[in-house]
Amino acid sequence: MRALIVGPDQPARVRFTPDYPQPSPAADEVLIRVTLAGICATDLEIARGYLHFAGVLGHEFVGTVVEGASHLVGRRVVAEINCPCRQCEMCRGGLPNHCLRRTVVGIAGRDGAFADYLTVPAANCHLVADQISDRQAVFVEPLAAAAHVLDAAEIGPGRRAAVLGTGRLGLLVAQVLADTGCELEVIGRNPRTIDFCRRRGLKVAAAPESGVSGRYDVVVECTGCADGLRLALGLCRPCGTIVLKSTYADAATVDLAPLVVNEIRLAGNRCGSFPRALRLLAEHRVEVDELVTAEYALEEGVAALEAAARAENIKVLLRPGGP
Amino acid sequence: MRALIVGPDQPARVRFTPDYPQPSPAADEVLIRVTLAGICATDLEIARGYLHFAGVLGHEFVGTVVEGASHLVGRRVVAEINCPCRQCEMCRGGLPNHCLRRTVVGIAGRDGAFADYLTVPAANCHLVADQISDRQAVFVEPLAAAAHVLDAAEIGPGRRAAVLGTGRLGLLVAQVLADTGCELEVIGRNPRTIDFCRRRGLKVAAAPESGVSGRYDVVVECTGCADGLRLALGLCRPCGTIVLKSTYADAATVDLAPLVVNEIRLAGNRCGSFPRALRLLAEHRVEVDELVTAEYALEEGVAALEAAARAENIKVLLRPGGP
Repeated sequence: MRALIVGPDQPARVRFTPDYPQPSPAADEVLIRVTLAGICATDLEIARGYLHFAGVLGHEFVGTVVEGASHLVGRRVVAEINCPCRQCEMCRGGLPNHCLRRTVVGIAGRDGAFADYLTVPAANCHLVADQISDRQAVFVEPLAAAAHVLDAAEIGPGRRAAVLGTGRLGLLVAQVLADTGCELEVIGRNPRTIDFCRRRGLKVAAAPESGVSGRYDVVVECTGCADGLRLALGLCRPCGTIVLKSTYADAATVDLAPLVVNEIRLAGNRCGSFPRALRLLAEHRVEVDELVTAEYALEEGVAALEAAARAENIKVLLRPGGP
Repeated sequence: MRALIVGPDQPARVRFTPDYPQPSPAADEVLIRVTLAGICATDLEIARGYLHFAGVLGHEFVGTVVEGASHLVGRRVVAEINCPCRQCEMCRGGLPNHCLRRTVVGIAGRDGAFADYLTVPAANCHLVADQISDRQAVFVEPLAAAAHVLDAAEIGPGRRAAVLGTGRLGLLVAQVLADTGCELEVIGRNPRTIDFCRRRGLKVAAAPESGVSGRYDVVVECTGCADGLRLALGLCRPCGTIVLKSTYADAATVDLAPLVVNEIRLAGNRCGSFPRALRLLAEHRVEVDELVTAEYALEEGVAALEAAARAENIKVLLRPGGP
């Protein structure tokens, strides 16, 4: 089958191959034919060597089950990316997303979705309701991650929140936060994404001068840059919460004294609930169609990744069947 | 009066002076004659230039009120170090320790306790019960900070906690945590302080090899070293809490990806409740006498600071009246 693969050579290099072996589902797995997949910042970081992943890239996708559990065959699904062992201390403790032996679709120990087919555990699949288009369904995984911010900080009416960064993830987080009725300001530099915010009625603020003391109860760091945390520490009020969404390959140099002096809580935050994301899309609470700025065939995957790294694009999709 | 002062020259330099102007208390202040003062890591950092403080060093002390509010004159007191404006947004919001215009005794905008006298707001003073000695009372401020860890993380029976670092603060934090009935392990390298832990019945663990996945629900970072956070990130279990107590003058380079991937909460943590610390001392729940390893006269303050920086010492005290 066709696939976009990375590694194991270091520095990592992404390449298209027309003859990657098609996977066979294990007893508890399904085989999915990928309809559409999305490129996210983590893919770009992995392509730079983050996590030393080797295999098929991609973890945001929608597809049709073609083999496996009979109640799923022929159905349109999205799938959670963490594949837990269901036996370790974390799994038994109710934290399967933190399974100590987990594989993660397209990220760790398991091939991903930038291919004609992939296998995932049947238990990871969620059916996609008819009113959600393929293009929208590709956003379920990142939207679940975006909405997971709500589990890390108290956000709602009367609370002042800032989203730092207007990239793919930042624009989803901003919409989820705005939906709670909090007093939201979005801080970004990209004219294209700032324009999206304005059209959606999201208030855009300039990054404050350094030295201004923080005034936000909650700051969500979505810049994807190592410098984002430093800025967030300046924006967050004493005893406020910073939710850190960005993962990047490089260590950051940051002065953490403000975190201690101002008693700020910094919460790492990763994957979230697929049912919640599916509900947000079904109820049209989040706009995603406008975020798609380019679509590529799988054969053009390397060009698609390059495009996704350029500021002119927000979300870039890959369609194995061709755009 | 005699005083140990720092700055304003950069790099900061600490020096003793026999003729610093004796302060006069404002209407809402008291004048305190210092009986005994303690040197902490923050003093050593300030002496290295942290916070660019200039003035009399020192914020851990016990003394006798000699002028001001009549109900306090002649009484033995300790005093909270944050002096709030009581008018700003933080003060009105119930966070006076985070007052935007606060001064802090011996740390920011207000002379400290390494002197014959100092002034503090009368409202900051707490009477010291007779069963608490001067030597014990000097520990009220750091013990309050140590016990404040209990406000940042769920700690108690059935919870696994680690204290990272067996310095002055770490040994107080460890005792406070052990008192909750949690499963505590103390991780340190200094034979002298490890010996103290063993005598107090505190379980001491070696720092694990890197790559070992975290198993503690709560890790309290008290190393005072920039590298401590990296180690703490390796010790903390997914969805656990790291309480960061160390402040240091230097920015740290740290890979924060584990914080995001493992969804760890990092809580900055500073000053705590004086009444709680006074209660812990009065009820003999924390041993502090053994922590005092040296006592110096104020005139020997520079040597005392040097001594406090050496591993052979735990707590070094300064006694204006002479040891």
